Amino acid sequence: MGKYISQSVIRRLPKYYRYLRDLEKNGVDRVSSSMLANALGFTASQVRQDFSCFGGFGQQGYGYKVSSLLEELAGIIGINRRHTAAIIGVGNLGRALMHNFHFSHCGFELVAAFDADKNLVGKKFGDVTVSDIADIEKYFAENHVDVAVLTVPKEYVRDVAKKVAGLGISGIWNFTHIDLSLEELGVQVENVHFAESLLTLCYGISLGEKV
Amino acid sequence: MGKYISQSVIRRLPKYYRYLRDLEKNGVDRVSSSMLANALGFTASQVRQDFSCFGGFGQQGYGYKVSSLLEELAGIIGINRRHTAAIIGVGNLGRALMHNFHFSHCGFELVAAFDADKNLVGKKFGDVTVSDIADIEKYFAENHVDVAVLTVPKEYVRDVAKKVAGLGISGIWNFTHIDLSLEELGVQVENVHFAESLLTLCYGISLGEKV
Repeated sequence: MGKYISQSVIRRLPKYYRYLRDLEKNGVDRVSSSMLANALGFTASQVRQDFSCFGGFGQQGYGYKVSSLLEELAGIIGINRRHTAAIIGVGNLGRALMHNFHFSHCGFELVAAFDADKNLVGKKFGDVTVSDIADIEKYFAENHVDVAVLTVPKEYVRDVAKKVAGLGISGIWNFTHIDLSLEELGVQVENVHFAESLLTLCYGISLGEKV
Repeated sequence: MGKYISQSVIRRLPKYYRYLRDLEKNGVDRVSSSMLANALGFTASQVRQDFSCFGGFGQQGYGYKVSSLLEELAGIIGINRRHTAAIIGVGNLGRALMHNFHFSHCGFELVAAFDADKNLVGKKFGDVTVSDIADIEKYFAENHVDVAVLTVPKEYVRDVAKKVAGLGISGIWNFTHIDLSLEELGVQVENVHFAESLLTLCYGISLGEKV
């Protein structure tokens, strides 16, 4: 760990992991770099290069054993580290995540959710009961939370981010439109950009249209 | 158009676009490739190479004019083509998009939303009123819809995707956990993978932890 790995390789890790999990579920035992490349839209040499970044767990000609590759990737990504997450902002998006997103598939336990709306406090969505945002400092002092999931309205984003950054979290999963950068506070931020995704689709469908 | 452009370049286009829009909003007139590179975490030569893919709209030493670059990018991405979108599945996530996502910033107009739940039909979220999913064929026959936004429960994903693919759409913006590939039907799919995003954050915070 600690070795410099480029952002583009890091971005590919979850794709490998997700695809390999599907293969394992479907009982596939071994996979070649060209099969991985085809499925994921990378080149085979890119796949081999990526894996060599992490000590190269393959045998030329034999491909990779799916289960070992998964285990190695899980270790590299840190999925087995029992991270915890808390949602801040239980609006539609917060509730969608509480109901439908499998935090456990990413190695996270969703331990709490906070909102300022008294009508929501005490209500349960999925497995988690909403707490009053006023109690967040107390909760974070008594419980270890690695990641804050930000699903608050945009006018609260910066204040909430600053507050939770001071409460000992390591990361923010940011669903808001506001770009956050808190590296100087030692907090990693992963911004989920819906707009970038829709713009990519826009490009794709525009290509197919008559000019 | 039609020229082959690699997936990784395409993925960077929306990032350029978003950042340049911010610059324009803040009254910045010109930007250099190294400034863009720093802000977005790319290398300056990557930026120059990307832009040269599209005919290279810059002057060595002077940088790029923000407004022209934006206009060019908007044209390449197809933002000015007045695409339309319809949401299918008005659960928490669908409602979050209807309330808070600016489709217009991506050049889309959200024209309709469909759900099977009779209690939702006729209700308005944001600017759009929910229609009965039973009326979707009629609606798509009478109105041009470019993109279907899939926010249905996973058991319905494949059926709904197949149905809308047959109704003349060009793209699916897929928020479900189910991977879709409908290229053979001429439908582009953009999958939004929350899990990949959280796994990327997982990697980032794991790196900083004591092993």
